Amino acid sequence: MNVFDSNSALLVDLYELTMSAGYFRHKYNPTVTFELFARYLPENRNYLIAAGIEDAINYVINLRFNDEEIAYLKSLKQFKNVDGEFFEYLRKFKFSGNIYAVKEGEIVFSNEPILQIEAPLMEAQILETYLLTAVNFQTSVASKASRIVQAACGDGKFRGIMEFGSRRAHGPQAGVLAARASYIAGCIGTSNVYAGYKYGIPVYGTAAHSWTLAFETELEAFKKYSEVFPTGSIYLIDTYNTIEGAKNATRTGYKFAGVRIDSGDLLQNSKKVREILDGNGFESAKIIASGDLNEYKIENLVKNKAPIDSFGVGTQLSTSADAPSITVVYKLVEVSENNHKIFKAKFSPEKQTYPGRKQIYRIEENGFFKKDFIDLANGESKTDGNKLLIQWVKNGEQVAGFPDLEKTKIYARENLKKLPGKYFDLYKKVNYPVEFSENLKQILEKVKAKYFNVNKRGEKK
Amino acid sequence: MNVFDSNSALLVDLYELTMSAGYFRHKYNPTVTFELFARYLPENRNYLIAAGIEDAINYVINLRFNDEEIAYLKSLKQFKNVDGEFFEYLRKFKFSGNIYAVKEGEIVFSNEPILQIEAPLMEAQILETYLLTAVNFQTSVASKASRIVQAACGDGKFRGIMEFGSRRAHGPQAGVLAARASYIAGCIGTSNVYAGYKYGIPVYGTAAHSWTLAFETELEAFKKYSEVFPTGSIYLIDTYNTIEGAKNATRTGYKFAGVRIDSGDLLQNSKKVREILDGNGFESAKIIASGDLNEYKIENLVKNKAPIDSFGVGTQLSTSADAPSITVVYKLVEVSENNHKIFKAKFSPEKQTYPGRKQIYRIEENGFFKKDFIDLANGESKTDGNKLLIQWVKNGEQVAGFPDLEKTKIYARENLKKLPGKYFDLYKKVNYPVEFSENLKQILEKVKAKYFNVNKRGEKK
Repeated sequence: MNVFDSNSALLVDLYELTMSAGYFRHKYNPTVTFELFARYLPENRNYLIAAGIEDAINYVINLRFNDEEIAYLKSLKQFKNVDGEFFEYLRKFKFSGNIYAVKEGEIVFSNEPILQIEAPLMEAQILETYLLTAVNFQTSVASKASRIVQAACGDGKFRGIMEFGSRRAHGPQAGVLAARASYIAGCIGTSNVYAGYKYGIPVYGTAAHSWTLAFETELEAFKKYSEVFPTGSIYLIDTYNTIEGAKNATRTGYKFAGVRIDSGDLLQNSKKVREILDGNGFESAKIIASGDLNEYKIENLVKNKAPIDSFGVGTQLSTSADAPSITVVYKLVEVSENNHKIFKAKFSPEKQTYPGRKQIYRIEENGFFKKDFIDLANGESKTDGNKLLIQWVKNGEQVAGFPDLEKTKIYARENLKKLPGKYFDLYKKVNYPVEFSENLKQILEKVKAKYFNVNKRGEKK
Repeated sequence: MNVFDSNSALLVDLYELTMSAGYFRHKYNPTVTFELFARYLPENRNYLIAAGIEDAINYVINLRFNDEEIAYLKSLKQFKNVDGEFFEYLRKFKFSGNIYAVKEGEIVFSNEPILQIEAPLMEAQILETYLLTAVNFQTSVASKASRIVQAACGDGKFRGIMEFGSRRAHGPQAGVLAARASYIAGCIGTSNVYAGYKYGIPVYGTAAHSWTLAFETELEAFKKYSEVFPTGSIYLIDTYNTIEGAKNATRTGYKFAGVRIDSGDLLQNSKKVREILDGNGFESAKIIASGDLNEYKIENLVKNKAPIDSFGVGTQLSTSADAPSITVVYKLVEVSENNHKIFKAKFSPEKQTYPGRKQIYRIEENGFFKKDFIDLANGESKTDGNKLLIQWVKNGEQVAGFPDLEKTKIYARENLKKLPGKYFDLYKKVNYPVEFSENLKQILEKVKAKYFNVNKRGEKK
């Protein structure tokens, strides 16, 4: 059998566990804060839609090591010198810390904390891999989906985007997660039935080329389909010849819902097909286009007034093909020992991080997002922006409920309305202003100075 | 909770089920053959390493619909006119057909059948989405991994590649599948612990930057690590300054196994680090490089004699970043009714397929693969090439066992030795010759002629 345990505690890079074993041995387990954020945005993204946060939090609060998993770890040569007490620790593992994160569907930018873990070091370390993979992928797809959804409505008219990419997603689970992330970002639904079953996302789909090929003629194939599905039939008309296919669609004797074109010149074909449909009294039949689409092709079709009512987008959406990952990282920013706070930062070239647990303040002007201001979470910032980071988990227990997926989708949509139009440019890189407080800058300088002093003093540089 | 059922029968595009319902209603359920193949190779791939086939077959032979899944389907508006008998059919669903496929780890090219389903139409249709997603992703990653592995050994010296990409893979399951596919294609192991647990793949990992940041000084961090892991310690030396990091590595008093460099100029830094290690008596300490690597960067490092012993490759491998999908498709090629065989083909522009269930004959010359010859599987081809497609499942029962993963890995390696060197060029597109038999070409022409005749006769073109 082929079972994948999506809750396994072993969904982790080995070094998270070797480090935890190291901290255990040294009895070094201060409360720390890690922040998860995107180091920079991919070339073709002016904003991100945060997603995957709920999965990440659910995993953390339910994380347990079972006996079989622990037996496997004990069998590894890496752990041969590790004390049995560490495995007892794992056996009793239950997350005891705090989790802060932005809401699912929130618009975020580079260097903004998407999720923060405040917990004993050993716990916080073990979570790294799962948190990154959960947030990285769904955020990638949601961000890609948002571009596609915006492009389809570029002239102000709503055209639905259906996510059709399961077959090219990175495995069965990725298809389901892509469907979810796409829906949050504004898609109207998915072809993935499991995503419908699990999340209540509307599911779409009628017939493939194989249906047409299975019958003697295309016309027969269309008729046979409508016999079973008398309402809502969408005929796929490009198996042999799109124009002939459109004509066949009008000859079935059924009031079909629409046609789908999956290849060829979508602009010219959609115009000709619209004429054929209208000329035969099927003005209400919709035209759906699919076939290796992305935001650029869709924007172009909309600009050129292609009479297409909705789009099915597959591979390029479910793999976020032009940016198949975002550079999310999980960085230690703070260590607290005996009520003494030590700020931490990494300052190797191009990988500099600001220390300390932060809050994002989103500042609006005339109903639009103007800029974000980032300051220490526990500081007393004088800005009156909207705080984006919320506490979801306190001492290991969930303290705020997740909204249902529909509300998350609406939240994302309402926020996107407040993002000025220039950030939706598909071709031009437009950087949204994210400012770090003077306080944070000063702390970073202190951390740097301290490091160099210590190195000069103690390590004979 | 956050459970993903990796065996769910609902991991399917809706249209597979609507089509099956349609066939059920029409009592149209002939034995058919679908072939799964890559339509063309991505720009940067001269060959593919087939993977994911075992997962695909396991899913098929274990596929069942449970009551909850059926209840969900019944609740969909799309199925409101569908007879209850169809859901009874689903309740009793068990695959009854045949599966032929190449071995896991086989080298394959565009238009070559990777997997074939010969089954009643309704069954064959339902399988499409899962088969595509399983084969597409693992084949993508295995093919990418093979390029990286080859690049690392470009001068004939073996350098191991460790797959480190879980955090950027497309969700938790994708990370595990990427680890598996990479291992088949020649990687020495993975950071993903679950992949080790589930597949017995060697796991790697020691410490991250956060370990170093957690201690007062870098030297202290290294010492503390070796106290716990006195053998096998790999110090990550680039948290602050790589050169200083290398010096600190030599000062711990431990015989560490090596150092890892994760940023900066890997060529210059590895040379300087090697000098520092050698100059302090650590000639046997290895240098491991990581940090957004791919086959091009690794080839360049090897060419320039960077003293690097092994590489950790993450994001670009686990997402197959430059080709995040391959255009695998699943096409109807044959329908058999009352012992009468009807060939099927699609011949829209650029999407032409050859009809009939096929066999791949791989022809060798002087110990190297020379070309592939494709003919009907049941024809009597006179070629004496090695037949690549094997029957794994007969009448729903597995008839050939899968080799263990180590054997698959060796099989892939032995095959790669027989692929002429020109196909390993990372920059140049070199097309391996794949010939279709005259017989297949004639059948395609007949199928085309028949379609156009039918259309002229019956549909008033």
